[in-house]
Amino acid sequence: MLPSDAKIISVDDHVIEHSRVWLDRLPSKYQDVAPRIERAEDGNDWWIYEGQQAGNFALNAVAGKDPKEFGLDPRSFDDMLPGCYRIEDRIKDMDREGVWAQLCFPNMAGFAGTVFAKSKDLELGRLCVQAYNDFIIDEWCAYDPARQIPLVMVPWWDVEATVKEIYRTAEKGAKSFTFVELPHRLGLPSWHTDHWDPVLAAAQETDMTISLHFGSGGSPDVSPEGGTKNFTVAISLFGLNSMSALAELLLSPVFHKFPKLKIALSEGGIGWIPYMLERIDYVWERHRWYNDVNREVRPSDLFRKHIFGCFISDRHGIESRHAIGVDNIMFESDYPHSDSNWPNTRELLAQALADVPDDEARKMVELNARRVYNFPDEAAVAA
Amino acid sequence: MLPSDAKIISVDDHVIEHSRVWLDRLPSKYQDVAPRIERAEDGNDWWIYEGQQAGNFALNAVAGKDPKEFGLDPRSFDDMLPGCYRIEDRIKDMDREGVWAQLCFPNMAGFAGTVFAKSKDLELGRLCVQAYNDFIIDEWCAYDPARQIPLVMVPWWDVEATVKEIYRTAEKGAKSFTFVELPHRLGLPSWHTDHWDPVLAAAQETDMTISLHFGSGGSPDVSPEGGTKNFTVAISLFGLNSMSALAELLLSPVFHKFPKLKIALSEGGIGWIPYMLERIDYVWERHRWYNDVNREVRPSDLFRKHIFGCFISDRHGIESRHAIGVDNIMFESDYPHSDSNWPNTRELLAQALADVPDDEARKMVELNARRVYNFPDEAAVAA
Repeated sequence: MLPSDAKIISVDDHVIEHSRVWLDRLPSKYQDVAPRIERAEDGNDWWIYEGQQAGNFALNAVAGKDPKEFGLDPRSFDDMLPGCYRIEDRIKDMDREGVWAQLCFPNMAGFAGTVFAKSKDLELGRLCVQAYNDFIIDEWCAYDPARQIPLVMVPWWDVEATVKEIYRTAEKGAKSFTFVELPHRLGLPSWHTDHWDPVLAAAQETDMTISLHFGSGGSPDVSPEGGTKNFTVAISLFGLNSMSALAELLLSPVFHKFPKLKIALSEGGIGWIPYMLERIDYVWERHRWYNDVNREVRPSDLFRKHIFGCFISDRHGIESRHAIGVDNIMFESDYPHSDSNWPNTRELLAQALADVPDDEARKMVELNARRVYNFPDEAAVAA
Repeated sequence: MLPSDAKIISVDDHVIEHSRVWLDRLPSKYQDVAPRIERAEDGNDWWIYEGQQAGNFALNAVAGKDPKEFGLDPRSFDDMLPGCYRIEDRIKDMDREGVWAQLCFPNMAGFAGTVFAKSKDLELGRLCVQAYNDFIIDEWCAYDPARQIPLVMVPWWDVEATVKEIYRTAEKGAKSFTFVELPHRLGLPSWHTDHWDPVLAAAQETDMTISLHFGSGGSPDVSPEGGTKNFTVAISLFGLNSMSALAELLLSPVFHKFPKLKIALSEGGIGWIPYMLERIDYVWERHRWYNDVNREVRPSDLFRKHIFGCFISDRHGIESRHAIGVDNIMFESDYPHSDSNWPNTRELLAQALADVPDDEARKMVELNARRVYNFPDEAAVAA
């Protein structure tokens, strides 16, 4: 069961950026085009970037509401918990749900910053990434460094700039960067190419885990109805992006070139992992001989060393933890999104782990995250 | 364990059509354009349809070869087991692998006949579907009706013609028809529309199960490398099509309109089903209120009544059979494709079922298929 002294670490939550994140940090010549909040004629708040409505205002920040009131988005800052955008309140909300520390993904520009990748002025896009990173490290995480794991964005449309930003933010304490799970879906070179090698080398050298949030490379391919008037289909299928990323990565040269690389499949769920590893091994066993794939190392062995699955609520995944690898599972709360169980996070997690031995539960809710994100318990270290 | 008297029924195998299937059955005015075999300059046999190379010659018909010799395709009829295309030899090959009965998908026109859907002359396409159906029922399955379950194609680009062909073939003994798993991916109306209602009504009325073979609606969305020089990625991910079909169907009006409909997810695997059902229920529970989806019936309850998963080799799926539903699982051999374990099918299946109670094993390897495909054991009925 969940030990009462386990400090729960959630490796996938979301910050809703407040209105001054970019205005306070970009050079004055960019004030007109920097992301800023405006109230539109429909009464809703919007981000305006480069003079146009762009990005997410507060995607799915519905924590604390009754599901019967769920739409996809709040309409204004008044329509969500202050903990969405104010770190003092966030820490209180974490106390209320029983989560000790968390790792937050960005919101306005998408989970991996795709909005900035589409900037008319890509130099501005790069500066916006940098400004967000300074915000998340120096303002958001600095408020209580034992309770926030700094995750940054990178300007992935420019490999050289990405490498620089990795080193710059690692120096400032960042532990992970967010990246698009399936670069080929954005028209970029895939994981099978050499294109990303400098980025992967920098990740390995700085010991920064790469966090691939599902949906960071686009929505799953669903029917027209399933992506609009019946969005339950798309929400149900977002995990397929993580499955695709898993197969693409395990069957690519990535881990053979970078033997210390760590990758988290954020919000992807874990209950499907045993099937997918078994399937990939089965295919590799039979088809490796005529394909351009490593023929020596079993893909599931690469998984155990390099990839980490994350769950919010996943009964089958918890039951199947030994087929996944107890060291390869991390917990996530997903505050303030609709998948979150806030404020009942700890209580429901304890129920879900009732039949799990304490040492395994502690790994899944705390110790794995500390190892993967290089985030030691300072209190324990000091003691 | 696998009872020694269980008659194994495989619900997903493949026929490689012999060279006279269409020439012997189409009206004489179509002889020039009917599918026929020609040896190309590269020394390979090809199907020529409407004057052009088209369709699969003998996709992946590699049974009996060493994986080190696998490419994707044989080059000619001389390069494969005669059991691929000759029913007398097929039955002998089934005896050799210990499979009693099987259901075969078509090959030349694709698992669901997409080649005929792209005919320049769609009336010819429809006649080709009909000719295949007469071949599979009157020639292939008639040779030993206790050992072949007749599965037919339908001209799904024409709803009215499809309904007629369903009734025509049901009358002749067909038990199932193959259909595209995700019609919207072919630019057709999705499962959420009323477009397919006459087809679904005919399936229900004739008690014909709809077999959705993975890949029947196109390949999974993989990287350029993962779909060509490293095809292990695509093969690993074909099951995602079945997952998508599952979510689209369970969250659509289909089963609410047709309460007796049965659908098989052929070759989709089963190890992922517990995760996907849990995920779909979780999303439905939270998001049904603002979406155009039935709000009364839990999607996993619909699954148990209407959908059947199929496995070739799926350790995790067998272990998770209670989370799937022991009544919702069927076995498949996949002869003569590369996923097949021919001629060791029965032996490996017995190993895989060693820890499964006899009555559950018998359901999964025989009884469920008899029920789903309305294919009683004539010997048992007579006795």
